[in-house]
Amino acid sequence: MSFDRLQKRIDEMKNPSVVGLDSALEHIPPHIIEKHIAEKGETLDAAAAAVCEFNVALIDALHDIVPAIKPQSAYYEILGANGALALKLTCDYAKSKGMYVILDGKRNDIGSTAQAYAQAYLGSIKIGSKEIAPYDADALTVNAYLGTDGIRPFYELAIKHDKAVFALVKTSNPSAGELQDKYIGDQTLYTHVGDLMQELSMDTIGKYGYTYIGAVVGATYPDEAELLRKRLDKTFFLVPGYGAQGGKAADAVKAFDSNGRGAIVNSSREIIAAWKKSGEEYTLAARNEAIRMREELLDALQRS
Amino acid sequence: MSFDRLQKRIDEMKNPSVVGLDSALEHIPPHIIEKHIAEKGETLDAAAAAVCEFNVALIDALHDIVPAIKPQSAYYEILGANGALALKLTCDYAKSKGMYVILDGKRNDIGSTAQAYAQAYLGSIKIGSKEIAPYDADALTVNAYLGTDGIRPFYELAIKHDKAVFALVKTSNPSAGELQDKYIGDQTLYTHVGDLMQELSMDTIGKYGYTYIGAVVGATYPDEAELLRKRLDKTFFLVPGYGAQGGKAADAVKAFDSNGRGAIVNSSREIIAAWKKSGEEYTLAARNEAIRMREELLDALQRS
Repeated sequence: MSFDRLQKRIDEMKNPSVVGLDSALEHIPPHIIEKHIAEKGETLDAAAAAVCEFNVALIDALHDIVPAIKPQSAYYEILGANGALALKLTCDYAKSKGMYVILDGKRNDIGSTAQAYAQAYLGSIKIGSKEIAPYDADALTVNAYLGTDGIRPFYELAIKHDKAVFALVKTSNPSAGELQDKYIGDQTLYTHVGDLMQELSMDTIGKYGYTYIGAVVGATYPDEAELLRKRLDKTFFLVPGYGAQGGKAADAVKAFDSNGRGAIVNSSREIIAAWKKSGEEYTLAARNEAIRMREELLDALQRS
Repeated sequence: MSFDRLQKRIDEMKNPSVVGLDSALEHIPPHIIEKHIAEKGETLDAAAAAVCEFNVALIDALHDIVPAIKPQSAYYEILGANGALALKLTCDYAKSKGMYVILDGKRNDIGSTAQAYAQAYLGSIKIGSKEIAPYDADALTVNAYLGTDGIRPFYELAIKHDKAVFALVKTSNPSAGELQDKYIGDQTLYTHVGDLMQELSMDTIGKYGYTYIGAVVGATYPDEAELLRKRLDKTFFLVPGYGAQGGKAADAVKAFDSNGRGAIVNSSREIIAAWKKSGEEYTLAARNEAIRMREELLDALQRS
């Protein structure tokens, strides 16, 4: 079961964090980009080659201490077909190193279209007699605004292929509350969405106690995370907003169960662009920041 | 201004409809797929080549009577990098034939990530000294669950590049109401989202009276469409759900202004897979169905 694998890996590494591969060109050391431009010209191909080199080196530097990666789809889509190849290579390489791959695509649609997204990222497509898995990530983020028939195709395919889904519940951005915090009767929209997702998936609880549908719960709203943690006791949480967006370790750990499980905290820029602040070689800077984050989270978990 | 161009084209063609290029393999005549598999094997490359041939032939058959295409991103993403190329080729070819391109991606994220999605589909990325537009669609569908700071980057980039955005307001699927119809105080979530989007964009009203942010309003909920039409008098509507999903022409026209403007109705399967029902050659079948739909809509508009 997908979240069992993730939780097991987190336990083994004693590190409930995921590195966000938001590999925008601005986060990549200029000499890498320049090298590929010298070879391939000022092209999407050159940019994608730089992204691949950067990601592979980061995965090499982090895979023995960080259990998972979270590539942010936008930074690959912006490079067109070359970006799609870079995303595929990144997913494959991370998995070959034993990492769990959460693709952050926030996909949403209905019926056969939601099904096609699910096949694209978590499943496979049949061409002639052959089944081809285009990306084969372990989990995909999705948006539930369309209701359960926008989520069910992802959920069913996740079960079939032993993958997982994270639905946006309470996001980490400043205006998250504009809609999510509105009251529907005596509860907020985000608790309503959270409840709906847990109810939908209650018949698929794994060994560690979580269903196939997780929830995205921002570290920037610790009170809301605490409330959701109590309410959604069978839901695994993906926690963005730590670090660059202002969430502290003490905030992020509100998303965890009392046994210290059931959540994974993301950090993107703070790790992958750590070289900008520290002046170190970029993979070393990333590793140092990943270790610092791990220690900070473990310390906060112990205090909580 | 993007919606001015679209409305002008609709007026010139006397056809407020858009063909949804949901080009799943099941909608493509088998002989086309078989031909490309014979050439390229059972590969994503072969599937994407079949999609390209299909789309180009449909655009050739429809561009003089249908003002716009709406490629559904999922059916291209499922073909990996080859699908990304097929999507790019489809957008470029449709534009070369004068069609307006609405990319249906329902993208959503925050800050720099939303910015990257906007650059990918509506804008450009700088690589070295060169600006490259990866897809250069005319409009993109987006999902507003994250609030206005998830929409603003799309909106700002749309203004800069003279593009447009359609935010999901009331979707066409059966469970749309699970969240969208919930009452927040004395109004529903979907009217709240609609109001938020129109307010956000009120300072960018074009010649025809619409702002840069349109709304997705399903034909399957005509009462809600009528209510939204009255409420959002500066908002251009994209209307899915006509045809295969059960929306009638009389329902779809509720989304139009009293002058018969301000909306475009989508049909996907009913047009692109019309050959399955009629037994005609596929481009002829598509053209006949597109003409039938146009006449039905114009007739319903006259009666309304």
